[in-house]
Amino acid sequence: MKSKLVLAAALLAAPALAADTAKPPTPGEIVATAPAGDWIAIPANDLLVMTLAPDAAGKARAIVIQLIPKPYSSAWTANIRTLASARWWDGLAVVRSQDNYVVQWGDPDAEDKAKARALPAGLMATTESDYVYRSRFGPKHGFEIKRTPVLKDLYAPHASFEAGFPIAKGEQWGVSWPVHCYGAVGVGRNLSPDAGTGAELYTVIGHAPRHLDRNIAVVGRVIEGIEHLSTLPRGTEALGFYATPAERTRIVSIRLASELPAAEQPKFEYLSTDSETFARYANARANRQDDFFIVPAGGADVCNIPVPVRRVTADK
Amino acid sequence: MKSKLVLAAALLAAPALAADTAKPPTPGEIVATAPAGDWIAIPANDLLVMTLAPDAAGKARAIVIQLIPKPYSSAWTANIRTLASARWWDGLAVVRSQDNYVVQWGDPDAEDKAKARALPAGLMATTESDYVYRSRFGPKHGFEIKRTPVLKDLYAPHASFEAGFPIAKGEQWGVSWPVHCYGAVGVGRNLSPDAGTGAELYTVIGHAPRHLDRNIAVVGRVIEGIEHLSTLPRGTEALGFYATPAERTRIVSIRLASELPAAEQPKFEYLSTDSETFARYANARANRQDDFFIVPAGGADVCNIPVPVRRVTADK
Repeated sequence: MKSKLVLAAALLAAPALAADTAKPPTPGEIVATAPAGDWIAIPANDLLVMTLAPDAAGKARAIVIQLIPKPYSSAWTANIRTLASARWWDGLAVVRSQDNYVVQWGDPDAEDKAKARALPAGLMATTESDYVYRSRFGPKHGFEIKRTPVLKDLYAPHASFEAGFPIAKGEQWGVSWPVHCYGAVGVGRNLSPDAGTGAELYTVIGHAPRHLDRNIAVVGRVIEGIEHLSTLPRGTEALGFYATPAERTRIVSIRLASELPAAEQPKFEYLSTDSETFARYANARANRQDDFFIVPAGGADVCNIPVPVRRVTADK
Repeated sequence: MKSKLVLAAALLAAPALAADTAKPPTPGEIVATAPAGDWIAIPANDLLVMTLAPDAAGKARAIVIQLIPKPYSSAWTANIRTLASARWWDGLAVVRSQDNYVVQWGDPDAEDKAKARALPAGLMATTESDYVYRSRFGPKHGFEIKRTPVLKDLYAPHASFEAGFPIAKGEQWGVSWPVHCYGAVGVGRNLSPDAGTGAELYTVIGHAPRHLDRNIAVVGRVIEGIEHLSTLPRGTEALGFYATPAERTRIVSIRLASELPAAEQPKFEYLSTDSETFARYANARANRQDDFFIVPAGGADVCNIPVPVRRVTADK
């Protein structure tokens, strides 16, 4: 009996359907046939390469994080670049893994002043008011036509996408904030008004904890290798912290791709969220008509429309 | 610098606040102080105990699944009881782990008629029309007052809870269906009109794939030990299937709790989703006022209000 759960995964390399079939294309097929011009290169200065100690079988573990572009979380992302340039994370560890929530890394001794690793010079001050971006410019009239999907949302008046990131929209024009979807990277902090430096980071490994939006800085997202974080053993202490140092996973290094030798710099592109292709892709995610589906949902939440990202290989 | 991501986890044993403080209780505090009568025992006949082969360190791996009660998915849950009684899963395997999606188990040879394990006698026929429940009875007028929260939803007219499970509500009275939240257990199937027997099962290990609602039978949820599934290495084949048999994790056994010796039967309770306590808990999840939070979300999706479940220990 053939009863695999057959599902078209986004970005799964699926052959494009011949034009003469009646079937609507799947989300993966729409992405696979996007014009080259719909793909936007991610600057090397926005990519962090995180290398964990090899796994038990000796296999390398590399994770690539895309930092969120301006105007979001700018002070924190500047600090993260400073910390990476200073090699501040090297030799530190993944300290926490809480099921259906987050994996967190940084300095295990952060709370012990005598042992904590000193932060590098030049970090910017951060403030919780910057969790939300408020444009100082009025709306452009008449000449800004975007095809970016605008979605209903349960945590904000609307949700949409900007520069490839899922974004919540406030009631007022120009008020928006990045949201916590699976793979989002955020900044650990102490109680308010502390807003964190960017030294303690986490990524989401479960259902989108959207209640964290506007309460923590979202600074990026994992675009490759998240399985090296999401499959780490869960910590057994409160909030998923590891009970003993031996349970932690060592961070070998975190580097900006722009500071790696040219030949080692990974290259990635995302599908323009303002493109017609993305609008069709989002619509297909919200109304699945793959062979597998009987009833299309007729909607999707912003975290169920992952922005397609692809690695650019040398032969492309 | 103390910058752990301090978050009140639901069900974390947090001390109740003294009545004279001005702070509203956290979701965890509300649950911790629920009256005993708000907890409902889960019948042993609704509990499945799944035992995987020990992990690399020799540690036991047990998972407890609660089957969804009637009127939902009744043919499939009946079949699952038949399969467990027949010890059908014993020696089979976890065959698939796809990041941010599902882990699936069953017969690795299901697609090979010559090798596939024969199904036990007595399985019920299943039909896709039963993915949705349609009550044959009209609404009760005047004497059915429930406090169960009714939530806005992006995949259905409304969402709510029934008998401790998250449920979507159709436009017509009496039309409802169980939803795919983190930890939901569903039935793998072939293309429509096949609806699966219940022999191939999966659980959600990522953001709620709500587009699967009404397209697959939801038969229960993992209530303990999901970390033994969610941390399994991801498969490297399409859809997260394992490339080689050696990568699969062996299922030692799957048993109904009611068929275990009395002393070995695990006991669980869930917080009545019709109780005032649950309504307060859901409201606190949607409007977090823990010390950590600055801006309450003002809403929550049905999958971000996990129904509290607790193990009942002998000394209780």
